[in-house]
Amino acid sequence: MSDPSIDADGRLRHLITLDGLGRARIEGLLDRATSLREQFRAGSTSLPLLAGRTVVNLFFEASTRTRTSFELAARRLGATVVNFDIASSSTSKGETLEDTLATIEAMGTDAFIVRHKENGTPARLAAHARRAAILNAGDGNRAHPTQGLLDLLTIRDHKKRVEGLRVAICGDIRHSRVARSDVHGLHALGAAEIRLCGPAALLPDAGEFPGCTLSGDLDAALDGVDVVVMLRIQKERIEGLPGLDEHAYFARYGLDRTRLARAKRDAIVMHPGPMNRGIEIAADVADGAQSVILEQVANGIYARMAVLAELLAAR
Amino acid sequence: MSDPSIDADGRLRHLITLDGLGRARIEGLLDRATSLREQFRAGSTSLPLLAGRTVVNLFFEASTRTRTSFELAARRLGATVVNFDIASSSTSKGETLEDTLATIEAMGTDAFIVRHKENGTPARLAAHARRAAILNAGDGNRAHPTQGLLDLLTIRDHKKRVEGLRVAICGDIRHSRVARSDVHGLHALGAAEIRLCGPAALLPDAGEFPGCTLSGDLDAALDGVDVVVMLRIQKERIEGLPGLDEHAYFARYGLDRTRLARAKRDAIVMHPGPMNRGIEIAADVADGAQSVILEQVANGIYARMAVLAELLAAR
Amino acid sequence: MSDPSIDADGRLRHLITLDGLGRARIEGLLDRATSLREQFRAGSTSLPLLAGRTVVNLFFEASTRTRTSFELAARRLGATVVNFDIASSSTSKGETLEDTLATIEAMGTDAFIVRHKENGTPARLAAHARRAAILNAGDGNRAHPTQGLLDLLTIRDHKKRVEGLRVAICGDIRHSRVARSDVHGLHALGAAEIRLCGPAALLPDAGEFPGCTLSGDLDAALDGVDVVVMLRIQKERIEGLPGLDEHAYFARYGLDRTRLARAKRDAIVMHPGPMNRGIEIAADVADGAQSVILEQVANGIYARMAVLAELLAAR
Repeated sequence: MSDPSIDADGRLRHLITLDGLGRARIEGLLDRATSLREQFRAGSTSLPLLAGRTVVNLFFEASTRTRTSFELAARRLGATVVNFDIASSSTSKGETLEDTLATIEAMGTDAFIVRHKENGTPARLAAHARRAAILNAGDGNRAHPTQGLLDLLTIRDHKKRVEGLRVAICGDIRHSRVARSDVHGLHALGAAEIRLCGPAALLPDAGEFPGCTLSGDLDAALDGVDVVVMLRIQKERIEGLPGLDEHAYFARYGLDRTRLARAKRDAIVMHPGPMNRGIEIAADVADGAQSVILEQVANGIYARMAVLAELLAAR
Repeated sequence: MSDPSIDADGRLRHLITLDGLGRARIEGLLDRATSLREQFRAGSTSLPLLAGRTVVNLFFEASTRTRTSFELAARRLGATVVNFDIASSSTSKGETLEDTLATIEAMGTDAFIVRHKENGTPARLAAHARRAAILNAGDGNRAHPTQGLLDLLTIRDHKKRVEGLRVAICGDIRHSRVARSDVHGLHALGAAEIRLCGPAALLPDAGEFPGCTLSGDLDAALDGVDVVVMLRIQKERIEGLPGLDEHAYFARYGLDRTRLARAKRDAIVMHPGPMNRGIEIAADVADGAQSVILEQVANGIYARMAVLAELLAAR
Repeated sequence: MSDPSIDADGRLRHLITLDGLGRARIEGLLDRATSLREQFRAGSTSLPLLAGRTVVNLFFEASTRTRTSFELAARRLGATVVNFDIASSSTSKGETLEDTLATIEAMGTDAFIVRHKENGTPARLAAHARRAAILNAGDGNRAHPTQGLLDLLTIRDHKKRVEGLRVAICGDIRHSRVARSDVHGLHALGAAEIRLCGPAALLPDAGEFPGCTLSGDLDAALDGVDVVVMLRIQKERIEGLPGLDEHAYFARYGLDRTRLARAKRDAIVMHPGPMNRGIEIAADVADGAQSVILEQVANGIYARMAVLAELLAAR
């Protein structure tokens, strides 16, 4: 098998994308996250699964939120975590990315958490890693697999199973790695229908998302769904949309209570954060009874713990 | 009781200001700090009072010194400490401060150490926190309660009690949160007299400090006092004072040996740091036998440990 | 003895330079590094030699690589490590360097890892430290003693002993603290011959390196040597060399396979990193069978552990 993410014994070696990972493996990770969550909620304050292991955060794109989530996940499992400051690092002195990786790896690093604005950087590093695991924390608009996992975990918590669900994902689909990883995961777990909705300029190219429907009509997209995922829209992107300002964006593509009423009564509302209140989501919906946004954040820790444990504990 | 700092059982839930905290509570914190100091000086290298707890440094104003003091205090009690980098965080991406707080709290954070240039931010966060404790590490010119505690602890070490003492606080009183928290604490513990001294433009408005005297005459202010607190003067502020340069400031408002001789023989000299040697304090006074400036720094660790233990250990 | 690096009992108190440290002490550190390496490779994930100790990284010059190496070394020995952010610290607010040191030391710091662009800063801090150990992580072009130690360790691993070896050090000798610390260590351990080679403008002043030969002829310098140390050349420095660009630099001073064949068959190739592939070293040599560059990185952890243990464990 040429996928560097799977080793000769069929074990997961890196986590680059959920695409192609397969239902059993994804459900195994979700089960592991659930089990870890139970142990911590029952009173464990740390589990030494990763004692003596070193995890390095290698964030070429700043993201305090995601970095902190990975850092806490690793530390609660007993790992030593180092935040490698790229801005003042050798990479900025002309060293190749591969040499930076090899150097930090030679210091005894067991896993790298990588975020990069270019698609494919984590896969490229995975191909060069000698023994360390690479965890993709977001590359370009391609994949953000732990976000996909935490979203699936949150959906499963509320809906018991993902199979057969109808899901709407709304906003800037084109540039969103969250949308892509959610779709990969939802397909793998048998979601019945995935509707992608947003302004035409922010929808993906036809054919990129087989099995999904594309539309610009949010009311229609929400009709009868079990899950609504609202994506962050960058304010600069709105400025690029002809005839739209923030107010008009909210009027056409924002989730408010009236619109949410089109979804199933027990539909859940998700958002990967950070939110622009009043732009893609109304404040009362963000804080409302159907919102599971803070549960997503909490589940992020356990989903990342599960991935770290899966990749490192068996080695 | 509407003060969010005190819970329904009368326990301290946040530390926002010493103002109104009451003598018993402040003395309890000082006693706890003293007891922790004894344990560490007797050879403890860490006490697991906060094992499994997560403390997040949320510094909107850079302060390596204070941040490091809190970090060491928390880590020596066994907590996991995360330094949240505001500059690259979601708050700078348009997220509200309350959403940033809720998000990091949802990751399992037990306490936030908050510094912010605007008065009232820690109180505002305390009103929104679901379960985490908020510790004010300095807001605007309003309060810096752990500095007040460490100053009281240092005074008590040397003078046995605060009650009945005469204290001079000198320099830029108007902009100083240290002066305010010192005054709150000194009043609560029964200091006999508090003299605030500085250039007229840097004195507070009349009536803001009831029970204190204001003056521009440093010689008179020092006469017979037990404690001298010299405040840092920002060089930019001197430039704004008519007819004063650094040399003239030192001549009129700086503490040198001759001036210090006006205080009691066993008076102690304090400074919250960082010092401008030769501007608000002469080098030989800063390094002299009456200086307790480095003791203040050492006590800062124990005062912060005491607050963290009080706020978190009982939960 | 006036050397602040050695205490009254003849024990090492600071590590400022290898110059004058003496063979026995250097070999003792190498032996300790080797022993620590064995323990970790045999399965130890951490040794609590420094439990309860606080180590502060004080890097006035950014260096993520070296800082991370020290941080991991200290943490694997159980120390608490704080990265003191100079850019947002009191030093930038007019505090003297000595006051910054005294303040952080008063927080209970046991060791400072110091990097500074000016020669002599670590020695100056060592003269002011009350009880903390100062470890030089590179000052100006003067010394980088732990790099010297890790290089000696790597050489000893491959050649069994340093005594009698022939070593070529090539590149920008003039500005290199690595070259200086390597020379100090190689002399102390009895290397037979040290050849320094580079463009005339980047060679040191005559007489600065007694017992070394200086030359501009790389082919001759490599002839029959046991060890080749290639130094990083800053691209800006090449621009300052008359008639040379990167391509011409590589042609005259770069190490390629043809040139390397002039050295002994079992010669090892070293580089302190970060490398400029294709400028001072050919990619196939950097990745070739004789390259021990990544071993240097791995040994850096153990050399730094040995120094920390030597300086702190006995106190």
